[in-house]
Amino acid sequence: MFSYRRPVRFAEVDAARLVFFARFLEYCHDALEALFADLAGGYAQLTLVRDIGIPTVSIRVEYQAPLRYGDVALLEIDVLKIGRSSVTVRHTIRRESDQTVCAVVEQVFVAARLSTLEAVPVPDDVLAVLERHVVSGQNVRR
Amino acid sequence: MFSYRRPVRFAEVDAARLVFFARFLEYCHDALEALFADLAGGYAQLTLVRDIGIPTVSIRVEYQAPLRYGDVALLEIDVLKIGRSSVTVRHTIRRESDQTVCAVVEQVFVAARLSTLEAVPVPDDVLAVLERHVVSGQNVRR
Amino acid sequence: MFSYRRPVRFAEVDAARLVFFARFLEYCHDALEALFADLAGGYAQLTLVRDIGIPTVSIRVEYQAPLRYGDVALLEIDVLKIGRSSVTVRHTIRRESDQTVCAVVEQVFVAARLSTLEAVPVPDDVLAVLERHVVSGQNVRR
Amino acid sequence: MFSYRRPVRFAEVDAARLVFFARFLEYCHDALEALFADLAGGYAQLTLVRDIGIPTVSIRVEYQAPLRYGDVALLEIDVLKIGRSSVTVRHTIRRESDQTVCAVVEQVFVAARLSTLEAVPVPDDVLAVLERHVVSGQNVRR
Repeated sequence: MFSYRRPVRFAEVDAARLVFFARFLEYCHDALEALFADLAGGYAQLTLVRDIGIPTVSIRVEYQAPLRYGDVALLEIDVLKIGRSSVTVRHTIRRESDQTVCAVVEQVFVAARLSTLEAVPVPDDVLAVLERHVVSGQNVRR
Repeated sequence: MFSYRRPVRFAEVDAARLVFFARFLEYCHDALEALFADLAGGYAQLTLVRDIGIPTVSIRVEYQAPLRYGDVALLEIDVLKIGRSSVTVRHTIRRESDQTVCAVVEQVFVAARLSTLEAVPVPDDVLAVLERHVVSGQNVRR
Repeated sequence: MFSYRRPVRFAEVDAARLVFFARFLEYCHDALEALFADLAGGYAQLTLVRDIGIPTVSIRVEYQAPLRYGDVALLEIDVLKIGRSSVTVRHTIRRESDQTVCAVVEQVFVAARLSTLEAVPVPDDVLAVLERHVVSGQNVRR
Repeated sequence: MFSYRRPVRFAEVDAARLVFFARFLEYCHDALEALFADLAGGYAQLTLVRDIGIPTVSIRVEYQAPLRYGDVALLEIDVLKIGRSSVTVRHTIRRESDQTVCAVVEQVFVAARLSTLEAVPVPDDVLAVLERHVVSGQNVRR
């Protein structure tokens, strides 16, 4: 499990004063970027220098409680499944103050050459980072 | 079916030069706001004056092809199901130039009093707007 | 003068329920993209194919009145000055309902090769588009 | 001087792969929110509970060098002037890797009752926070 703390920002709510539903996905991506900071050069070098990214192929969000300005979002990433190219992760987004689960996000992405968008095997260093966060007691590999 | 045309903007792509995955949900919301422009006072009056909104409770996105700067997104909204409070819609997002389907989004939202977030019956005028866009040949009501 | 109409979106306000101050610049860029739609291939082809962009070098905003959800922003672009590489424009942002001026933005940008960021002369077709919108009675050229 | 560190995010660049010019203002606001975290309850309580905010009345940005994905922005806030209601601050935005100044932002905001937008005197606790960051050797008060 990888943990990431993300205060809600002033401009991230909508006219209903709730964090806009699309922003939950931004928070998930922020958490993934933080997770991949463990790579040499981070996610930036992976994408810009090595031309490898992780485009999302599917995502499912269950919204359970709102986040508001003043809240801090706590994200936990669990790696559920690792295939040759594809990876399934679950983000659990909690409100820090009372630990309420605000959303559960299941995301499938694939390692891909960014210039062509063809799938590639998950690179070894990316694999090593992901494997640190596999949900315990599960055999996620291949 | 409700149709909505949305050129990709210069700042809506990410460092891989693809429209960022979270923005697809923004496009869906833009389309819904356009759909609800048929209400008296639009979605703004519904939310700000009548205190009624449509918080999303679940969403599922299948990403099938990328959008890039210079593309125009075409969104089609089909209403799949209308319950007492909850509504299921499908957004089909196409690239205008070649009609490729870039994403299919299934979204469930509920009519709710925004100040309390308790579910309320879908108001009659909202219902009337939604019913214009039910997928043909389907009995979506209640 | 070039005119552009931009409804405020649900997610563009902040926790104070006012359009976030940074978004005024997004609106200005949206208007510029619309202005440059008159180029063959639009601003996308200019930037992505011809490798020419218009990075902003300075901007000044006077905020005079708020915009809220439900408002429509009306932008007017006046070209104030055209140099060899640099261009000065003024955006006047009004609230459509009562024509109140919400902000006046003065923006200086330079034509530049995007891959190197070196300034280049304003291309002739860009010049032609800009000259249509010079503020009347002024000799803006070079 | 108040310092704030802000890694550029994957989705914060534009189609030219440069941090979009409007985002510099988002970074400034992020820095201000971090500065006001020293208030009891932070900026959220100031705005949502005490109904006091700091709408920007004018802003000037000189863009000097680009930020890209992979860069970290370092912001320094200096308080230049404090009036009864209005405050002038300068944000210096540097690229962490080589300390290049990417932008200098001068921002004037006013303390205001958010529900009415009328100016109010800068509250004492806000004043105390701001005074910690006045540019040295200057008499900024009133």
